[in-house]
Amino acid sequence: MSIGRINEYISKIKYLDKDAMDRARARQNELAKPPGSLGKLEDIAERLAGISGELYYNTDKRCIIIMSSDNGVFEEGVAATPQSVTYSQTINFMRGIPGVAAIARQFNTDLIVVDVGVNADISHPLIKNRKIRKSTWNIAKGSAMTYEEATKAILIGIETAIEAAESGYTLIGAGEMGIANTTTSAAVLCALTGMPVERVAGKGAGLLEEAFRHKIEVIKTAIFNNKPDPKDPVDVLAKVGGFDLAALAGVFIGCAYMRIPVVIDGFISIVAALAAARLAPLSKDYMFASHASFEQGFVHAADALGIEPCLNLDMRLGEGSGCPIMFAVIDAACAVIRNMGTFAEAEINDGYLEEIRAGDSFTVEN
Amino acid sequence: MSIGRINEYISKIKYLDKDAMDRARARQNELAKPPGSLGKLEDIAERLAGISGELYYNTDKRCIIIMSSDNGVFEEGVAATPQSVTYSQTINFMRGIPGVAAIARQFNTDLIVVDVGVNADISHPLIKNRKIRKSTWNIAKGSAMTYEEATKAILIGIETAIEAAESGYTLIGAGEMGIANTTTSAAVLCALTGMPVERVAGKGAGLLEEAFRHKIEVIKTAIFNNKPDPKDPVDVLAKVGGFDLAALAGVFIGCAYMRIPVVIDGFISIVAALAAARLAPLSKDYMFASHASFEQGFVHAADALGIEPCLNLDMRLGEGSGCPIMFAVIDAACAVIRNMGTFAEAEINDGYLEEIRAGDSFTVEN
Repeated sequence: MSIGRINEYISKIKYLDKDAMDRARARQNELAKPPGSLGKLEDIAERLAGISGELYYNTDKRCIIIMSSDNGVFEEGVAATPQSVTYSQTINFMRGIPGVAAIARQFNTDLIVVDVGVNADISHPLIKNRKIRKSTWNIAKGSAMTYEEATKAILIGIETAIEAAESGYTLIGAGEMGIANTTTSAAVLCALTGMPVERVAGKGAGLLEEAFRHKIEVIKTAIFNNKPDPKDPVDVLAKVGGFDLAALAGVFIGCAYMRIPVVIDGFISIVAALAAARLAPLSKDYMFASHASFEQGFVHAADALGIEPCLNLDMRLGEGSGCPIMFAVIDAACAVIRNMGTFAEAEINDGYLEEIRAGDSFTVEN
Repeated sequence: MSIGRINEYISKIKYLDKDAMDRARARQNELAKPPGSLGKLEDIAERLAGISGELYYNTDKRCIIIMSSDNGVFEEGVAATPQSVTYSQTINFMRGIPGVAAIARQFNTDLIVVDVGVNADISHPLIKNRKIRKSTWNIAKGSAMTYEEATKAILIGIETAIEAAESGYTLIGAGEMGIANTTTSAAVLCALTGMPVERVAGKGAGLLEEAFRHKIEVIKTAIFNNKPDPKDPVDVLAKVGGFDLAALAGVFIGCAYMRIPVVIDGFISIVAALAAARLAPLSKDYMFASHASFEQGFVHAADALGIEPCLNLDMRLGEGSGCPIMFAVIDAACAVIRNMGTFAEAEINDGYLEEIRAGDSFTVEN
């Protein structure tokens, strides 16, 4: 059974290396700055040390894993975008057209695109075909998928993360493409936390007021009819989630298993992260929040996960588009611990001063 | 008189190019994403178009201008750090030791360091010597500087920005180094806004409780004794400010005059930005907030300026250390408008599909 394999991976996720974290903290306190004055950059460097066991973390090879899938609940009219956009944008990631592709190119970030359930045939040499089937079923009318399918999707995510880590990626972002997946994400978040639907559902890509009220009713119906068990995140993902969400949850678990830092993107991504953390509590230590999505459910998911985003950009595109910018924040954190001088090095001794006064022998190190 | 020259620069600051901004907005609405879904990235790209008159802005050559100076109020015991640190860190910027240097190197950002009033002789081939005099006077006992000195400092800032723009820099950050300058910044902010000192003063680089209470009293005394005129920002900077603050205010004005986007760093930087905006209201259109400093006065200065930071990193180092990360956000904004495909381009036509199905003729564009 797939669930057994998932649990095996989960059981092998390790605690952060406290010793390396202590060394990172000690190192940062030696650097020429008031202790703690670099705030979250210091926390990030410390956590990277805990993840890798090393003081200096190399982030040169980074990618975003994008899980693409369609969601049967689309037929309820809960999305402002045609369903075919899942298909076209999945292909377009490889053509450099969507937002995440434009930003990723600027930040030397590769895209790994996986079809886990797009509602059309895709045969593309660079898109990983791990299609479970074409689209989930409509959660308003029954379960999105079987329990076994949910475990399959999670395993696909775990395996994709493992492959990425084995290819040398040391920094991974978690993105998605799936029209109607703010609906399934809101349903999963409510099911996992018991939060009222009204506080969690948002207008997605641009729903009008009436369609938005309908979306809320659809989510309530889905939860009422399916009765997902909050104590079993796989059951929640199977009943009111999607292949995209379940596979992304697997990415978070797989990154933790491989000891790779993984960056959360927007609303769908953070709901998948929350599901992963409920399945595998230690996986949370490997997650880094990026930006606070404009979608209103994001902050509740972040609270439930106990994680605080670094960026506030009012973005609500998804795809993983916020990940590359967070990679830059992580780069800054790595640069501080690697490049900064210590208090001892910051002392200006007479030799240095004579040297710079002499002028000709002076070379700039920065 | 220097004030006449300042006013001449200010009078030449232009409004943003509304036509270019309209074109940027129209372009962004054509891109393959829900309108507005990239939030502040879209606002940034629009404003860059307004600044430059062009749709695509090139940010390849970027620098941080660091204004270094000592503050006479140091003798009141308002800082947790020895005064000599202004001197040593000013030199250390060129040795790559401080936080901003470590981060700037990672982000291909140059540092332009200007000595406007460090309390020691500095003769360094790469540090611009524009020293007005060694340290301001103690604001608790009188004016920090004369009115004429304040205008000189502002002009130094304007001229430094102009030189940077003429050297080809198209993106500038505003940093500073000056022990005790959270005290002068809080005094300037209170004087400009009428806000109570208790809400604005912070613990700087790490004051203990008693010293912090003393700092508040010192700021109150400085404002009470000097009676800075809130309607004359030059008077405020002269009486309770510093050379670093006044010169930085000049950098903001100079960037606006040269039509160069300028990034605010932390608390001192944003107070200088506020002073600049009070002197030259149009200069605000050229300013971009970076991170929300941990120093409690920051949010009040940001509110007074009407600007919202993109990053939340709990940083409180200053130096300009938050600027390079904001440069990355600006890079992302530029990448979106330059690299993303339009809705028309996002359509998948049969020719493309046949091509990718054929396999061999397929090339990845991203």
